[in-house]
Order: sequence, then C-alpha cells, then structure tokens
Amino acid sequence: MPTEFEWIARIRAGIPDAAPGVEIGPGDDCAAVEGRAGFLTLLTVDALVDGRHFERWWIDPEALGRRLVAINVSDIAAMGGVPRWGLLSLVVPQPLADPWIEGIGRGAAAALHEFGAALVGGNLSGTDGALVADLALVGEVERERVLRRSAALPGDVIGITGDLGAAAMALAVRSRAAPRSADEFAVVRRHIEPRPRVAEGRALSAAGGVGAAIDVSDGLLADLGHLCAASGVGAEVEVARVPISESARTLAARMGVDAEALALAGGEDYELLFTARAEAFDAIARSIHEATGTPVRAIGRVVERDACPRVRAVGPDGLERTPPDGGWDHFREGRPR
Amino acid sequence: MPTEFEWIARIRAGIPDAAPGVEIGPGDDCAAVEGRAGFLTLLTVDALVDGRHFERWWIDPEALGRRLVAINVSDIAAMGGVPRWGLLSLVVPQPLADPWIEGIGRGAAAALHEFGAALVGGNLSGTDGALVADLALVGEVERERVLRRSAALPGDVIGITGDLGAAAMALAVRSRAAPRSADEFAVVRRHIEPRPRVAEGRALSAAGGVGAAIDVSDGLLADLGHLCAASGVGAEVEVARVPISESARTLAARMGVDAEALALAGGEDYELLFTARAEAFDAIARSIHEATGTPVRAIGRVVERDACPRVRAVGPDGLERTPPDGGWDHFREGRPR
Repeated sequence: MPTEFEWIARIRAGIPDAAPGVEIGPGDDCAAVEGRAGFLTLLTVDALVDGRHFERWWIDPEALGRRLVAINVSDIAAMGGVPRWGLLSLVVPQPLADPWIEGIGRGAAAALHEFGAALVGGNLSGTDGALVADLALVGEVERERVLRRSAALPGDVIGITGDLGAAAMALAVRSRAAPRSADEFAVVRRHIEPRPRVAEGRALSAAGGVGAAIDVSDGLLADLGHLCAASGVGAEVEVARVPISESARTLAARMGVDAEALALAGGEDYELLFTARAEAFDAIARSIHEATGTPVRAIGRVVERDACPRVRAVGPDGLERTPPDGGWDHFREGRPR
Repeated sequence: MPTEFEWIARIRAGIPDAAPGVEIGPGDDCAAVEGRAGFLTLLTVDALVDGRHFERWWIDPEALGRRLVAINVSDIAAMGGVPRWGLLSLVVPQPLADPWIEGIGRGAAAALHEFGAALVGGNLSGTDGALVADLALVGEVERERVLRRSAALPGDVIGITGDLGAAAMALAVRSRAAPRSADEFAVVRRHIEPRPRVAEGRALSAAGGVGAAIDVSDGLLADLGHLCAASGVGAEVEVARVPISESARTLAARMGVDAEALALAGGEDYELLFTARAEAFDAIARSIHEATGTPVRAIGRVVERDACPRVRAVGPDGLERTPPDGGWDHFREGRPR
C-alpha cells in the first residue's frame, strides 16, 4: 500500500510538469502556490472517517468539527502560515443527518473563526456508508517566511514545542473505561481537540537561522523521518530529552504502559518539530516561549545522512530505540485509534 | 432536510461576521476571496460517493477522477474563472484500494492538466464504508470579470450554452441494459464526463451587458430558480426554445420518455445558464459561439419577482410546466442516479 505522497508522486509521474504557480508541490505539510503580492497561498486537506479516525461514542459532532479544523490548521502552522478560508465537505448517512451535519458545521465554523479564518463554502452528500468529514483549508505565509520539511542541515539542533504522548495515552485510557481522573480527562481532551501551534509557527517563521519544520501527526520518530527524508539528512535523538506530557507519564506509570514509547511513536500530538542552526537555537527557543508561553526543548541533532536507520534514538540506558516503520498506514488493521 | 447552503447559512448564523478577505461567501457556485493583484481566488469543493453519485459497474476509476474534476471545474466556469490547483481527498475501502486510488488520481491529475490546472496535494484514508472521492478546487478570475448568481435584472434575456437532457437520458438508458446504439453511447459518455464550459464562461465574463450566471447541475428549472432567488427576480421560460440533445431526443422517442422533461429537470448537463441585458444578448451569444463553437440560445426572460412560482415555464401547448421543488436533495431516496 503506497503512502499518500507516494501515490501522488506515482500519479503525477505520468503528467507533464506544467504547473504554473506551484512553488511547493506534494510532499510537504501543505502545497504552496502563488498568492497575493509577497505571499504564498498554502493549500491542505484532511478527512476524518467514522470508524477509522473516530468513534461516535467518544466524540460529539461539534468536537469533531473542531478537531477537523485543528488538524488542518496544524499543517498550515508547520509551514509558518496562518489559516484563512475553509471548505467543508460532509458525507453523512441519513440516520445521523441533522445533528451531525449541523454540529460538525458549527464546530468547524467556530474553530475557524477562533483562528481568524472563515468557513466560506461546502458540500453535502448522503451515503449508505460511513460518515466522512473533509476540510480543505487555504492559508497564507509571507514568501520569505515559509517553512519547509526539506531545509534541515547537518549540525542543526532539533527542537520540539510543548510535550508528547498525551494523545496516544488517550487511546489507552479510552479502551478501558470512561475517563475518571483529572489526568484521564486531560489526555482525552488533548486528543479530541489538539492545539495547533500557529503562534509558535509564526514566531519560528520570523526567526533567523531556522532549518526545517513539520508537525507531529504520525509520531515523533516517524515525522522526524519524513523531515530527514525530505532534507536528505539523518538525525540523532536523545530520548531522555524528549518532553513527555505529565498526565501521560502519571497514567502510564499507573497503567504499566511505556510512556517513552507513547512520546516517540504515539502520534496525533500536533506539536511543531523543527531544526535550527546550532548558534541560533537558544534565541529561537526563547523567542517562541516569550511570544506564546510554550516551552521549546532541544532533543537532538541533525547529522549527515548515513546508512539505515535514518533516525537514531538513543535512550538514557545507552540503547537504541527502533523507530516505527515510517508513518501512518491508513489501511493497516489493528492500530488503536 | 436543509440544502447545502441552508445549513451553511444556519451554521454561520451563530458566527460573528469577521471574515476578512471574503468577497463572495456561501451561496454562489464558488466562494470568492481576495487573490493576487487584480484577481479573486475562487474556492469550490464537490464529492462523488459510491452508491449515490455513481455505481462501480458503470464507471471506471480514471473516468471517475475525470468526472470529479469536470463537475468542480464547471463551478469555476460559472464564475467566469479558470481552474488552477486541486486537492484530492480519497476515502477508500481496502478491497478497492490500489486500482481505485491510482485510477482516480491519474484521471483527476490528467483532467486538471488538460484544463491548465495541477493536482498539488491530497489525502488518503481507509474506510469500512463507501468509497468517497472529494476534490477541492482553487481557481482565479479577474476581479472585474467575476460572474455571480445574484446579478440578474428584470428585462434580461436568459441564455443557455449547448443542449440539455443527455445526462438524464443516460440514467434511463443505463437502467435498461448496456448501451448499444451510437445515441446510447453518446448520452452515457456525456453523463460520465461532462464538458465544463470554461472557454464559454471566459467569453461571457469578457463581454459587456452580462447579468447573472450559474451552471446547470441540478436541472434547468431548479438552477434557474437558484439564480432567481439569489437575484430577487422571477423568470419566464419558453419551453419550445430550450435546446434538447439530439441523441436524447431520438432515444426518448424510441423509449417513450418525455425528452422535454429531461431537458427541464434532468440535471447534470453542466451547461452555462446566464442572463444578459436584452440589447447585448445577440452580441454575447455570437462572441461565445465565435470563441468556442458552442451555440447559445435565448430561452426566456427575467421578470419582476412576483408570487409563486418564481420560475414559470410555458410549453408550446400554452400550458405551464411545473418546476421541481427546488434542487437536488442529497438525502431523497429513489432518484435514479
């Protein structure tokens, strides 16, 4: 099964490369096309499918609309931009029609508004199958501030905003029972409505000495692998430096789950992962923290690309952690959602 | 069950109207937002759902990708613009995965390329439900050339490109058996891959004296009703002047189907319906025909908005035809697709 970008690459292979106005094509968090004077227009799309990305017993319609906006806004944030306009396409089975259509729409419109963006159009279809909520999002970034996956250089320091592991912990909590403790509610809330790092991405895109950037949707090591592949470099991560959500750490200890594994491979945390020239890193981390209150931590180094594996993660025990096999497989069975 | 734009209006009702850069919001063929200097950016989205908009026994993956592009491009054409960049979101059940993903993608990419546009990104999800192919399309139009639904004035002549009824005839043909005659193949081909009227829309948007425009997706009388509602006017159609596809007429006679009803209410023909100041109409029709080879016919007049019905269609027998109840209901059962 090819990944999204592999199949897009395959499909495009047969098409003459006559795409005027395309500055960044498939393979980054967003496509970037020519925009108004001094700007690039950013384009991204993401879907949430009933039974795959969510179950109706753990998310209500408005929260689903808000989550759909958040995961798309995160892609705009990873390019250093701001979201502007959204198109919502809903495919809804008749028995769910009214409350789910209105709830998803209201949640999406409200969330877009909170990000300074607007819902400007949509499409509605019936189905005999599963509910699908699809959002296409248009953003903008100043041409000279756009962040890419492909701009990491050997010697760069690797940084991450916030902390990791809560979203993955939510899946473990939810599989047992309804959340009861404050920590359980915290991780479930974090999973249902992630906080896309728009202000952090803006601060990053205004700084000097930044390398590459990507959002952590598939998992830290998987997304770092995507960044390295796009940049033609390798990376070494010091696992002891990876920030783990306090709630996730507490629950993991209580439940006998490996918190470190959740943080390295869990996914859906939507933090920003970036690289910066070593001499610039501290000032960048400070400027993001001052602008947003979000902590930024150095977790490793970009290295020359050597052999496999592309990303080496070394734990405090001196042993290597094995990164997952490269991202989110939309057809793999058995992954807890 | 609200229509698409009714629910968008309902959802938006609760949101403060702080949508900077939005020039035309929900309710037209596309949204229009600020674009590069002198241009508006046009945004539209449409989905094709297995079992609702198509059946896999009558369309192959590449043709489905091409059809998805065509119906979206038609919305750009109705605003007078040109398509530029597309985002394809596919939700695919595992058993269909490889050939349908690659085929839809290849068809969509090729069709976009033929229209001078490009596939710049996408999203891929699995599902246990029905296949959904969703395309978000970005286009552009010179700011002073944008066509709207809302600009019809009483006294305008109503014009239509090409002819109507073939797409609806395809449904009747298909419900009986595989197509056999040249006329049967012609209407089925017309339905599977409509020809969006981009060049015609460009000629229209360059002309003086144009009123409103819309594409005919739901059916002539239904879409004329949308145009009239947006413009606050009424319309009178001379049914004898409505151009009917020759193949549809031949097949209808043979099968005992009412060709006139197919042309008035059938839908999915994707012709351009527009209004023009009476003194300008002939020159506009001529300029479209000269630029594109596509015939344009006058089929009626815009009138002051009076009581119900908004659109009166009078046949050669002097009797009124009853328009359908106002558009495509995505949840109505029993409509042949």
